[in-house]
Order: sequence, then structure tokens, then C-alpha cells
Amino acid sequence: MNPRAAIAATLKSSSNVLITCHLGPDGDCLGAGLALALALRRLGKSVTVASADGVPASLRFLPGADQVVTAIPDGSTFDVAVTMECSSVDRIGTVAPAVMRARSVVAIDHHAAHAPYADLTDWDPRAAAVGEQVDDLIKHLGVPLDRPMALALLTAVVTDTGVFRFGNTTGQVLRLAADLMDHGVTVEEVVRAVYEDQPAAAVRLLGAALAALELHEGGAVATTAITAAMLAATGASPAEVSGVVSAMRTIAGVRLAMVFEERDGTVRVSIRSRDGVRADRVAEALGGGGHAAAAGAEVPGGLDETRRRAVEAARREISTSHAAR
Amino acid sequence: MNPRAAIAATLKSSSNVLITCHLGPDGDCLGAGLALALALRRLGKSVTVASADGVPASLRFLPGADQVVTAIPDGSTFDVAVTMECSSVDRIGTVAPAVMRARSVVAIDHHAAHAPYADLTDWDPRAAAVGEQVDDLIKHLGVPLDRPMALALLTAVVTDTGVFRFGNTTGQVLRLAADLMDHGVTVEEVVRAVYEDQPAAAVRLLGAALAALELHEGGAVATTAITAAMLAATGASPAEVSGVVSAMRTIAGVRLAMVFEERDGTVRVSIRSRDGVRADRVAEALGGGGHAAAAGAEVPGGLDETRRRAVEAARREISTSHAAR
Repeated sequence: MNPRAAIAATLKSSSNVLITCHLGPDGDCLGAGLALALALRRLGKSVTVASADGVPASLRFLPGADQVVTAIPDGSTFDVAVTMECSSVDRIGTVAPAVMRARSVVAIDHHAAHAPYADLTDWDPRAAAVGEQVDDLIKHLGVPLDRPMALALLTAVVTDTGVFRFGNTTGQVLRLAADLMDHGVTVEEVVRAVYEDQPAAAVRLLGAALAALELHEGGAVATTAITAAMLAATGASPAEVSGVVSAMRTIAGVRLAMVFEERDGTVRVSIRSRDGVRADRVAEALGGGGHAAAAGAEVPGGLDETRRRAVEAARREISTSHAAR
Repeated sequence: MNPRAAIAATLKSSSNVLITCHLGPDGDCLGAGLALALALRRLGKSVTVASADGVPASLRFLPGADQVVTAIPDGSTFDVAVTMECSSVDRIGTVAPAVMRARSVVAIDHHAAHAPYADLTDWDPRAAAVGEQVDDLIKHLGVPLDRPMALALLTAVVTDTGVFRFGNTTGQVLRLAADLMDHGVTVEEVVRAVYEDQPAAAVRLLGAALAALELHEGGAVATTAITAAMLAATGASPAEVSGVVSAMRTIAGVRLAMVFEERDGTVRVSIRSRDGVRADRVAEALGGGGHAAAAGAEVPGGLDETRRRAVEAARREISTSHAAR
């Protein structure tokens, strides 16, 4: 049986549903989760959407984002709990106990690896976004899409494909986006809401970080640091760092890019890679983790020492990586 | 009669075709032009593709780009000349006399305004890219798409929609892109070829320009300057300036963004606007021109004086523009 048919049947026979996202929630898990919540409410279900880490400012335009809770009271129980893009239980964060108390647990995930924990699992690593899977699930529920659902699903698809730039952008994704636009939403409005209208200070900080970039290992590794002095000079806050590491990853010859941010006593390292180089292995060498192409770590200690250790880890990873472009 | 049917009939009855682009050619006019050239060669036609300003480095991956000529010998005549995205004859540049000597002139354009000069005109301001129009023309020619044609057309569509970010991104464009991907090309390969793999020096220059941005008129106008000193410090060449003005246009509150580049005795001004503010009117005040949302000028004189005049022109335009977001 198609897992989506079984999941739809389980949801239809429930009255009380919890939907939850992974830690550090993104446009895909929140967009897909909020679209499913809207569809289930159309069927008369009582739905709670939870995100242990809340909703980032750039995603608060999503329909229903203002009703997302960060915690579930100890006594609450649900007929069904649905997790969005949680490849393992620990990715659910503090909402995990409420999820595991539900009578049925449903996991919808598209990560390359998934550690099973649910009664029903829709795991599709070929999907560009769980938004694609939830679009199909809503069809199985028999609920016609409306504009708010289409906006939430388009946000899921647009954000997880890097606005259709990443390799997961298939013809199927583009056709889904076109179908969603038939409901009166546009890619432009999603892009504007999620990515644009940044404060001038954040753009100055992006500039200062890129201007200070350094190359290592014959140009295969690019690094830059965001220092307390840079924050002071540009007027930006640490939360406004964005786009730096992605921009560096696309420099000619660069296979691994790293940004080091000075925090109180620790250094936050963001790592991106391409052409077969594994960002997660470099992150693991620093005590962090992540995906093959995107990973990170929080390293206790100073900036210079962390940068030196990270470049050394990157050197080892690149020398063992034989994948060529 | 549908202009494309008439244009296809004219092309089919010809043996010798000239296809040409506008000055400062982009991915749309070159991609669409080269796709049409491939289709016509399949029909046994002799085809010359000309671009008075040549082919920018970022578009040299296009199939047939290495055969694009920048001039046509005085004596040469063609049965048909097709212009791509030339809203008036002067946009053809030095290739214009050869175009106007042809027995039939065909214009394919999607600009908001078009000053007629051709025997047959396919003018469709609703098209996101002339690549959309040429895709349909190739269907009228009865030539099945192959991978090289699909790559050229996808490049046209991807570049003229800002990788599907701009307001001209319709469901129809996304479905066309999906159909083109069915021929084995990907958005990712186009993005990588056109936009990525920039030299580190160009990314440092982008950073330095963004770090130095200034706001005017209560934050509605953003400006920055690219000075000779900045080029020296980053190691970049003037041809490597890209992405600066687009990044500034998206800052919260900004309605008009301008970049000033010091050249020998002149200042090149790039202008972008949104929310109803007219970039072309600001450019005209400086002796330049362009479109409503993207315009430019070459101003003789110094940087500070040009910037002062430009900010004053921007102030006047914003005070007369009543369009709100």
C-alpha cells in the first residue's frame, strides 16, 4: 500500500493531530507542516503545529505561523503526531515526548538517511522538499488546494531548492510550482518574503565578510571570519549573518567554504561544499555534524585557533576526496 | 494570421538567414538566437549569428557561441534577418545595415515598448523571455528539440527571469523550463555556467562594494561606489563587477539603488528600482536610458559630483512617484 494512502486514512480517522518540525526549522518543514494543518482543519480536525525552535522572522508570513507553539503541555495527548523532515527522534527537540505519546506517529522525510521511529513513514529521498510529499498527501486527503495552502507549499519548494538553483530541481518540482501558481501565488512573493528586505546593516556585513575572504589549499578552500569588530562597524547583529558561506562556495575552484563567527567564548562554523567534498566530515572533526554539502559546528575557543584547525580538517578531507567536478 | 506561422513560413522558404542580438547581449537574446540557429540548420538553412558586442564570457558555454560573429561584410546579403530582443533598429548596433539589407526582416521582441522596423514582428510583452517565443516558433518550424536547443532556450528563460525570482515568472515559464529539462538539461547547469565560478577577486570586490553602501532619502535610495582603489585592493578587473546593484535593490525600504564605477574620465552608473520608482527617468536625467526597473548612464566627470547629481535625480523621481509597495 502506498504510504500516503495509509497516512491519509489514519489522519482521516483521527480528531486531534500534532504536526511538528525539526530543530532550526526551515521553509520546507514549516511550509509543508502549515499546509497540512490547513488541509486537516478543512476536514474538521483539531490541529496543533509545534516547532521547538519557533518560527524564524523570515518565515512569519506563512499562513498560521502566528499559531505555532514551541512546547506541548505534559498532559496533552494526540491521536496522530506528524513529524516534518525529522530524520531521527532527536531532531524533533523538546517536542519529541509529546510526539512519541501520540497513538500513531507519522514521519514525512526526504533526507538521504532516515532512522525509523514512526508507525507510518513516508520517506522519499528523491523528493526535492517534503512540500512535494505533502502536496500529494493533501490530494490523498481529498482536500482541494486554496491560496494559503499553495503559498505554504510553494515556500517549501522554493526554499528547499534554493529558488530552483540546486541540483534537486527536477521538472516535477517546476511543474508543481506552476500548479501552485495556478492558485494565485507567485514565486516572486515567496522570494521577497523569505530572502529580501534585509536591513542595510546585514547587507553591509555580508559585504565586509566577502571582502575579507581568504583562499587556502591552492584555492580549493575559502574562509572568512565575522568578528565582533565587523558587527560594530556595520551595525549588524549576529542573527543577521546570512548568504556569506553560500556566496563563497560558488567561487571558481572552491570546493569547500567556511565562515567563522565569534560568539561568547565559542566560534560558530558554517561549512558548505560541492563536487564530492564532504562538509559533514569537516564538521565532525570540529565536534559538529550535518549533511554532505552543508554542515556546521560550535567550537569552544578562539577564532584563529578554530580557523587553523578547520582549514587543517578541510585539507585532510580534500586530499581524501577523489570526486572531481 | 499568427505571426509565428507567417515567420515560420518565411524562414522555411529562405536559404540564407542572419540572426542578431541587441547591444550588451544577454542570455535571452543569445540563447534564443542560438536555439533558432540550431533549428534552422536542421532544416538545411545557412545561418549566421551576429552580435555587435560579441558574447560575454559567462555565455560562451552556449552551443554555437564560438561561431558568433561581431560584424557582417559590406557586400553580404541574406534572405531573412531575424533580430532578437531589439526594441528599435539602433539596439542592433553595427550589424543594423546588414539586417536592413535583407529581403525580409523579422523582429522577435518582448519589451514593453517596440518601435516597429521589421516586415514581420512577433512582439509579445507578456512573454518572460524571447526564448519563450522562439520555443513556440521552433514548434511552428516542425523541428523537434534536442539537448543543445533545450540548453540554449533554458538559458534564455533562466537568465531573463533572474532564475525564476522576478515578477515575470509565470506558471507557463515554469512549465516550459520543466519541458526543456525533459531533454536532459538542468537549471543547475545553467546557473553554474552563467552565474557561478566567479573569480575570488570578483567576490571580494562585490563584498567591498556592499560594505561601503550608503543610504539616502530616509533609506529609500542606496548607493555605493567602485573606486580604482577598490579594484587594486581586491585584485578585480572592472569587467568583474556584478551583482552589486541587484543586492542593494532588495534592502528593506530601498526603492532605488545605484552603483557608480570610476572609469577613465567617466563614471558608469547602474540603476535598479522597484515599487513603481522609475530607474529610466533617473538615468535620463544623467544622459542615459533604459527600462523602468533597470537603467544606466555613462557620465563624463568625477565620482563625487556624479553621485551628488544622481542622488538629487533619484530624490526628484521618488518624490513624484506615488506608487506604493
